[in-house]
Amino acid sequence: MTSWIRALAVIVGLAPISVAADGMRGTNDLGIVVERASGSVRIVETTGRTGLGRVTGLGDLSHATAVFSRDGRYAYVFGRDGGLSKVDLLLARIEKRIVQAGNSIGGAVSQDGTLIAVANYEPGGVRVFDSVTLAPVADIPAVWGEGGARSKVVGLADLPGQKFAFTLYDAGEIWIADLADPRKPTLVKHRGIGKLPYDGLVTPDGRHYLAGLFGEDGVALLDLWKPEQGVRRILGDYGRGAEKLPVYKMPHLRGWAKAGDYVFLPAIGRHEVLVVDARSWAEVARIPVHGQPVFVMARPDGRQVWVNFAHPLNDAVQVIDTVELKVVHAFKPGKAVLHMEFTPRGEHVWISVRDEDRIDVFDTRDFRRIASIPAEKPSGILFAARANRIGL
Amino acid sequence: MTSWIRALAVIVGLAPISVAADGMRGTNDLGIVVERASGSVRIVETTGRTGLGRVTGLGDLSHATAVFSRDGRYAYVFGRDGGLSKVDLLLARIEKRIVQAGNSIGGAVSQDGTLIAVANYEPGGVRVFDSVTLAPVADIPAVWGEGGARSKVVGLADLPGQKFAFTLYDAGEIWIADLADPRKPTLVKHRGIGKLPYDGLVTPDGRHYLAGLFGEDGVALLDLWKPEQGVRRILGDYGRGAEKLPVYKMPHLRGWAKAGDYVFLPAIGRHEVLVVDARSWAEVARIPVHGQPVFVMARPDGRQVWVNFAHPLNDAVQVIDTVELKVVHAFKPGKAVLHMEFTPRGEHVWISVRDEDRIDVFDTRDFRRIASIPAEKPSGILFAARANRIGL
Repeated sequence: MTSWIRALAVIVGLAPISVAADGMRGTNDLGIVVERASGSVRIVETTGRTGLGRVTGLGDLSHATAVFSRDGRYAYVFGRDGGLSKVDLLLARIEKRIVQAGNSIGGAVSQDGTLIAVANYEPGGVRVFDSVTLAPVADIPAVWGEGGARSKVVGLADLPGQKFAFTLYDAGEIWIADLADPRKPTLVKHRGIGKLPYDGLVTPDGRHYLAGLFGEDGVALLDLWKPEQGVRRILGDYGRGAEKLPVYKMPHLRGWAKAGDYVFLPAIGRHEVLVVDARSWAEVARIPVHGQPVFVMARPDGRQVWVNFAHPLNDAVQVIDTVELKVVHAFKPGKAVLHMEFTPRGEHVWISVRDEDRIDVFDTRDFRRIASIPAEKPSGILFAARANRIGL
Repeated sequence: MTSWIRALAVIVGLAPISVAADGMRGTNDLGIVVERASGSVRIVETTGRTGLGRVTGLGDLSHATAVFSRDGRYAYVFGRDGGLSKVDLLLARIEKRIVQAGNSIGGAVSQDGTLIAVANYEPGGVRVFDSVTLAPVADIPAVWGEGGARSKVVGLADLPGQKFAFTLYDAGEIWIADLADPRKPTLVKHRGIGKLPYDGLVTPDGRHYLAGLFGEDGVALLDLWKPEQGVRRILGDYGRGAEKLPVYKMPHLRGWAKAGDYVFLPAIGRHEVLVVDARSWAEVARIPVHGQPVFVMARPDGRQVWVNFAHPLNDAVQVIDTVELKVVHAFKPGKAVLHMEFTPRGEHVWISVRDEDRIDVFDTRDFRRIASIPAEKPSGILFAARANRIGL
């Protein structure tokens, strides 16, 4: 942009820096890549498969994740340091940033897009903010037991009907918060769900909430269409068990995957992917894989499940065929494969290879690498189409 | 916009007319409303629930539908007169328009967004175009039988892997076209699927293709994960049957709905919604409703199914609870309820009330009307989030 055009652009209210030459482009094919080491995100687009810009100053992005505004223009980035940053993907800049807690672990956007909820370790609880202004709206301290202690909160997910589900790690409880009246949240508490629930997820239809247990065997399951039945235990003979296997990295439950009639789950500590019937919740199979699975992600059509692994086997990826229930492809993208994100209709998958400072893009039909995009120590990859999904 | 700013805007390459004041906005919350009588579409947004602009000159929009570019910026509008118009939602103008056939009935966009396919009655077949330029890429004449006759094509849908499925009305065949090499489509033909298949759909995971039959009882089902099993018949004792009920309006199969473990289908000619087990494909229930159903649509979380009806009962809407399998709410939005579209995460539903020149927006939790938007004889409502879904 020459300087006189830049000056005119300022006059007419166009910011001089924008991800599109004429300041105008769709957002349904945008996304961000978290660059943990530099506290920045790289803005990317999946049509031409290129990087469009970088936004810095986002604080500690260890374990960072993000959700998107319902119009796809803004990413809400949740940092580990309690930072909540609203990033404008079109102007490639921070629109607003607050530090809302001392230590946090992800968040969610309400069904209608008006509320951003954050799960906090310190102080333990959930805080809710206006998605336009980031002004505080509600505070839900995770107080449990008799002594007034607060629990760390994990596994925060949006539910239909302006609700959020989350799990109290220390308390072993699942809470459902109804934010229909955002300043007066109502809570339903499910107690005694099991020891040390370390993460949770909601199925893509918003019906089932699952919490993985680290302190005992099995997985806690809540059918949100039948809350009166309470939480029940599934996979009761699965877990770390008596053997207490070493766990190199906790799996991410957001990576749990529904594909066809099954849900595919990463086993904790074992070189296995578990297959569960999505109707009966009985175990169907255990598929041997290369290492301890971290993310187990279904291609959007459900015909493939892609798996990455914990250190020291984290240079590899395996692909499971969900009809044959076995590994049909394996390869090594490079050192430290941290995350995978499918394009919304599943033709491609983007893979972050942290220690090679690279995002690789693969065709999911023939497994060919079709693009490679530079990024600084990339971890999470999140596409703006999540704006229009439940439970992400 | 004052005239001097408009002049500057032209200098810097900004079009003077745009749906956003600064020429910049996200597209994930945009949509179009087809205004049949005036050959126009109204551009709308679902966050503030307003109309943003109107694009005219789209020809005969009877039975018109649309798909979206993968970036959400463009709608491809399929007119009944064979017109294919690429509409820029941000600049509210026609980017490109061709008349590609004499009579057509909808279309689809390839998984990767590069190809637009159109189903034609005259000449019978499918034509495929480059999504950027609308230049012709492939022509697939629907020639069948011995004499070289061409069949009308219906039920065109995208499938994973750059494929399209469609149905030959006159021939009673389902064809699967693979456009991996777009200039040399390969075809798999399933013959003898039943008499007069009038429409088709693919399930949201791209796995099952169903074609409704008008000439005999039942529905043709193809499991695309097991194509070697061929097409089988389900609901064999359902249909117009011996009674030959009068049919006031053919149901739209794109309205068929998967919700939880079931698929909900409009019965032809009967005041019933059929419920089918999505795993066994056996009939589970028939739910009595107000009239002959036209669209039977699941809220994105699957807990509700909304139904509208054929003339003369087309002033009403009913809502089915998918656990109780019964109607739990009924109301009359107004004269000639033609279409319904849920916001992508299901908090609201938009309903076109043609003869009242109005779109009404309802909260799906309490059924309250929360907005009303003027439109000229509105029919189809289509949101840009479809860009990121399979089979729409």
